[in-house]
Amino acid sequence: KMRVIFVANVEVEAMDHAVALARKAGEMVREALQNERSIMCKSSSVDLVTQTDQKVEQLIVSSVKEKFPTHSFIGEESVAAGQPCVLTNNPTWIVDPVDGTTNFVHGYPFVAVSIAFAVNKELEFGVVYSCLEDKMYTARKGKGAFCNGQPLQVSDQKEINQSIIATEFGSNREPEVVDKIFSTMRNILCLPVHGMRGVGTAATNMCLVASGCVEAYYEIGIHCWDVAAGAVIVSEAGGLLMDVDGGPLDLMSRRVLAANNKTIAERIIKEIEVFKPTRDDAPMDK
Amino acid sequence: KMRVIFVANVEVEAMDHAVALARKAGEMVREALQNERSIMCKSSSVDLVTQTDQKVEQLIVSSVKEKFPTHSFIGEESVAAGQPCVLTNNPTWIVDPVDGTTNFVHGYPFVAVSIAFAVNKELEFGVVYSCLEDKMYTARKGKGAFCNGQPLQVSDQKEINQSIIATEFGSNREPEVVDKIFSTMRNILCLPVHGMRGVGTAATNMCLVASGCVEAYYEIGIHCWDVAAGAVIVSEAGGLLMDVDGGPLDLMSRRVLAANNKTIAERIIKEIEVFKPTRDDAPMDK
Repeated sequence: KMRVIFVANVEVEAMDHAVALARKAGEMVREALQNERSIMCKSSSVDLVTQTDQKVEQLIVSSVKEKFPTHSFIGEESVAAGQPCVLTNNPTWIVDPVDGTTNFVHGYPFVAVSIAFAVNKELEFGVVYSCLEDKMYTARKGKGAFCNGQPLQVSDQKEINQSIIATEFGSNREPEVVDKIFSTMRNILCLPVHGMRGVGTAATNMCLVASGCVEAYYEIGIHCWDVAAGAVIVSEAGGLLMDVDGGPLDLMSRRVLAANNKTIAERIIKEIEVFKPTRDDAPMDK
Repeated sequence: KMRVIFVANVEVEAMDHAVALARKAGEMVREALQNERSIMCKSSSVDLVTQTDQKVEQLIVSSVKEKFPTHSFIGEESVAAGQPCVLTNNPTWIVDPVDGTTNFVHGYPFVAVSIAFAVNKELEFGVVYSCLEDKMYTARKGKGAFCNGQPLQVSDQKEINQSIIATEFGSNREPEVVDKIFSTMRNILCLPVHGMRGVGTAATNMCLVASGCVEAYYEIGIHCWDVAAGAVIVSEAGGLLMDVDGGPLDLMSRRVLAANNKTIAERIIKEIEVFKPTRDDAPMDK
C-alpha cells in the first residue's frame, strides 16, 4: 500500500488556506441570511439542504482543486450528489460547508463551516468557523487548539453531576431511533447532570467541549464531515474522542463522543443506548 | 381599590434606567466569568445560584429604590431570601439578575439580565440583555420590539412541520415531571418539526421567538422573573403569549407559551402534557 510522505510546510499552507476559505464561506452564509432561503429536502422532510450549502461547497471544492490538485475531497454535498465517501491515504479535505442547515434556514444563531484535513487517514488539522458568532476555531495536530487566536482548554470537571452534556435530537424521526435518543437523554439528565444543551450543529457542539463550556458531546447519526474538524479541536484542547460504545472513534461510523476526560466519557457511555446507522462509507445503492 | 395613575414620562425614565442597569449588570456578569465562580444550590443539586446572581440583584434593587423609592420589586434572589412574590397595582420591577445561572457557571454563551416593569398588574416594558452576545432586547407596550435598536418581527411560518420549537429540560428531576417533559418533547419532535432547541435561558428563548429564529417557546416550571420582560418583547414583535393550556398567560403560574401566531400556538398546545407547579405567589411556608 502506498503511504504518503507528507512535507510539513504543505500542511501549514493547507491550513492557512482552510482558514481563509472558512472565513470566505462564512461571509457567504451571512450574506445569504439577508436574502430569501429556498429549501430542499434530502432524506426526509426535516433533513434540509439549501442552495447556499451547495454554493459554499462548490467554492471550497474548486479552490482546493486549484491550489492542491492532487488532494482528495469528501464533502457533504458532493457525497449527496453521488461522489464516494471513502477515506484513503491520499491527503483529503473533509468539508461541511454549512453545518447547522436547519439553523441557517431559520436564522438561528449557530451555523458553522467545518474543514478538516487528513493524511494517511489521520486527521492533521481542523478549522470550524462559527460564522454568526464570528468565532474561528483552529487546531493542528500537536500544536494546540484556538478560538480567534486564544488557546482552548477542556473543562477539568470530573463529577458527572456537575456537568453539562451536549447532544441533539437529530433529523431521524423513525420511532425506534427516537426511542433510543430520548431514552439516552433521559438517562443522562437524571444522573443528574446540571443540564443538557445542543446548539444545532455538531461542529460547534464539539468546539463548546474544547472551550470547556460543556463537559461532553455525543451523537449517533452525524456524518464524518460534521465531526472531523471538531475532533482535532477537542483533542488539541486536551479532550478525548471515542465511539459511543467506548471503542476508538471511527470517523465513518456516524457516531461520536467527545469528552473533557475519561471519567466523564466512561460515565456517559454507560447511559447511551447504542445503535448503528448506515456507515458513511457503505457502498451506495446503484 | 387604588389604581395608579401613571405619568408616561416616568415610564420612559424607568425604561431608560432599566436599559442602563441591564448593561451595567451584564458587565458585572462578563467580569465575573473571568474569575472563579462559587456555586450554591437552591431547591436541588441542579438548581444553582452564585454570588454574582446576588450581587447583580443587589445592584439593581438599590439603584431602583434610590431612583424610584415608591416602586415595588420582585426579584429572583429577593424572593429566595424571603421577600414576597406578589404583583400589586403599584409600579413593580420584576427582575432576574442572571437568567441562565447554569450557563453562567459553565461559561456557556447565553446569560441574560431580565428586567420588566408592570403598572396596575400590566406589563409596560421589558428589557433583556443577552450579555455574552452583547444583544440588548427592548420593548415598550405599543412601541415595538428591538434588538440593539433594530426592529424585531416574529416568524410568519404557519406550518408546524416547518418550525423550530424552543423549550428546556428544566431543573426538576422528579420522575413524574421528567416523564411529562420528555413526553411533550417527543410529541412535538415527531409532528414532525424541523427541530427543537433551547439556549438555557427562558428570557433569551423568548427573544429568539421575537427575532423569528424559532416559531415558539414553551416551558412549565419557569418563574415570573424569567418571562416577564420576554413577554413584552414577544408581544411587541407581533407574537402572542398564552398559558400552556391555551388560557391567558398568568405570570405567576410558572407556565408559558410564546408563539409567532395562533396556528402554531394551538398546534403545540395539543401536544403539551400539562402540570401545575407551585405558583410563584403561593403563600410561603412559615
